[in-house]
Amino acid sequence: MQEKLTLMIPGPTPVPEKVLKALGKHPIGHRSPEFQGIVKRTTAQLKWLHQTTGDVLAITGSGTAAMEAGIINTLSRGDQVLCGENGKFGQRWVKLAKAFGLEVKTIQASWGSPLDPEAFRKALEADSNKQIRAVILTHSETSTGVINDLQSISEYVRAHGQAITIADCVTSLGATNVPMDEWGIDVIASGSQKGYMIPPGLSFIALSEKAWIAQQRSDLPKFYLDLAQYRKTSYKDSNPFTPAVNLYFALEAALQMMQAEGLENIFNRHARHKAATQAGMQAIGLNLFAEAEHGSPAITAVAPENIDAEQLRKVVKEKFDILLAGGQDHLKGKIFRIGHLGFVNDRDVLTVVASIEASLQHLGFLKTEMGKGVAAASLALR
Amino acid sequence: MQEKLTLMIPGPTPVPEKVLKALGKHPIGHRSPEFQGIVKRTTAQLKWLHQTTGDVLAITGSGTAAMEAGIINTLSRGDQVLCGENGKFGQRWVKLAKAFGLEVKTIQASWGSPLDPEAFRKALEADSNKQIRAVILTHSETSTGVINDLQSISEYVRAHGQAITIADCVTSLGATNVPMDEWGIDVIASGSQKGYMIPPGLSFIALSEKAWIAQQRSDLPKFYLDLAQYRKTSYKDSNPFTPAVNLYFALEAALQMMQAEGLENIFNRHARHKAATQAGMQAIGLNLFAEAEHGSPAITAVAPENIDAEQLRKVVKEKFDILLAGGQDHLKGKIFRIGHLGFVNDRDVLTVVASIEASLQHLGFLKTEMGKGVAAASLALR
Repeated sequence: MQEKLTLMIPGPTPVPEKVLKALGKHPIGHRSPEFQGIVKRTTAQLKWLHQTTGDVLAITGSGTAAMEAGIINTLSRGDQVLCGENGKFGQRWVKLAKAFGLEVKTIQASWGSPLDPEAFRKALEADSNKQIRAVILTHSETSTGVINDLQSISEYVRAHGQAITIADCVTSLGATNVPMDEWGIDVIASGSQKGYMIPPGLSFIALSEKAWIAQQRSDLPKFYLDLAQYRKTSYKDSNPFTPAVNLYFALEAALQMMQAEGLENIFNRHARHKAATQAGMQAIGLNLFAEAEHGSPAITAVAPENIDAEQLRKVVKEKFDILLAGGQDHLKGKIFRIGHLGFVNDRDVLTVVASIEASLQHLGFLKTEMGKGVAAASLALR
Repeated sequence: MQEKLTLMIPGPTPVPEKVLKALGKHPIGHRSPEFQGIVKRTTAQLKWLHQTTGDVLAITGSGTAAMEAGIINTLSRGDQVLCGENGKFGQRWVKLAKAFGLEVKTIQASWGSPLDPEAFRKALEADSNKQIRAVILTHSETSTGVINDLQSISEYVRAHGQAITIADCVTSLGATNVPMDEWGIDVIASGSQKGYMIPPGLSFIALSEKAWIAQQRSDLPKFYLDLAQYRKTSYKDSNPFTPAVNLYFALEAALQMMQAEGLENIFNRHARHKAATQAGMQAIGLNLFAEAEHGSPAITAVAPENIDAEQLRKVVKEKFDILLAGGQDHLKGKIFRIGHLGFVNDRDVLTVVASIEASLQHLGFLKTEMGKGVAAASLALR
């Protein structure tokens, strides 16, 4: 049905009406005191969300812009880095690091499995000459629905002493606990169209003091993504270049809603939605692509047998107006992905399970009695 | 008065209601056929606006991101470039080029004066070894309200044969005639919050075939702004990274309005508004910062004598809810700038002249009979 589409992809995520209204306001001057007020307030809100007292900077750009900024501001040509790679976004880190002339070593896991923290510990302990300048990884691997153990890996990086931890928290921040300071993460990149509940176009980068020390020796060329300029202007509640003013309006409104809900409640909601989605899929005989215990709080990847995932996705969209994500690269047709990130309530989770169940039935592939999925999801939501 | 502010700064510019409504819609998936349709249609519209058959690519970022993309995709470390510098945005080109290790020679003019095309001709003719790889300049210098003679300079670059022309057309595109193919401009950078009549967050870069040939030998490191990726995905009506989906909605709506008005009408409107603004200011005894014949179609800089420009700007904002731009860097307090770019009609021009006139009177600095400015502007608008 026209105009009735619900997004259950891992971004863009659904946007609250209040946030859309803020987005659709007439822009104001980005050098005005009124806009400085917005920068000041959103900066404080962003620090709250990241659980940090350090700098959190907003960049007008996609999440990849923040990832790139994390690399080119802390590292130098030829630096050795250790990249975790167990999905498409881990691969992106590797490509990014290589594009800027870094010497990349990888720790891999198969797509659908988590990275092994022990492998990082060993590699870091073996680096007695302290050649590794950064450990770079994806927290929630959006392509496979796997959450990596960022906390443990970050701890091993701290024990190493020299290296910094650079993390893509694009689909974990605002969905699960990422206490930046407590875990000692040095760089966190994220994007607006995820847990933030606003449309794409803003990305965020948070940096620890150790990251700023690394920044001082970084020699990679940069201008638009030169974070020293962003930090300098942020202290004046401003930006080095014209920012996406209307997305800032939306950001403030969304972060207000998040603060009203509270971090604990947000994380619990995502945990319940993950559990209910997993339970619903398993109850109708569909396999989870990742083991349940390593499932991302933001996204559940499902690997149906005997049926093309794209065909199922098509029916869910056409009959029930829910957009699910497909598999990427070699997983296309093999998995579909349910986004339960951001502005998602219990009703959405029941609905997506029911719609997938009904679509399977429609296609003649439902092996269980209709309603089992919803029953299991409902139980998990209680 | 609250919520009644009118922007007459050189960006963000006023946004039509229809465009704001499009902006405030629920986002859709950026990999969906529906979004591909938007990319396809806006790409065609952008080519129309640039008067080119070549590639025009949209980047999620500020105008500076497009400027940087223009440099890092066509040049290599150590390349010699000739930069025009007669204002803050010419300076930005110099800083950008130096940040990426280019060997920069400059042709300067004082702030408020246009670049001398003859100086470019001589420098290019003297370069018999064809060392100059690019001539880089600002078309409409936003900081001073001066339009540079891009057409002549581009002609001299073509006569040189080796070099390409890279132009910042941020405040000229959509305000005055910039026929990319006819003038033989190789790279044009622009931003959404200007003639495009949408809020900031998208930038655009157009490239000629000669620019793509230069791209093949460019060795500067890049990833987020790697235009080869943007071109490749644009041929599939898509983007390499999650784009600012809602700004694309706004872009399509705004470009539809521009197509309905027609390029000739848009350019004539801006020319009339420039003439009326200049006439209005001169009639009340205020000096134009740039000579009238070199005035930008987008912005008029005014240098009032005996009165602090910031004080005047403050009164215009507080009494009449019109935001004017101040002077940048050493011009702060010395000039103010009236933006008449984008979604601006004759009423806006009469209003801004009347408001400045009345504010001068309020401050006791109006030397003429009240109404002379509006009379002159009105005459020029006929």
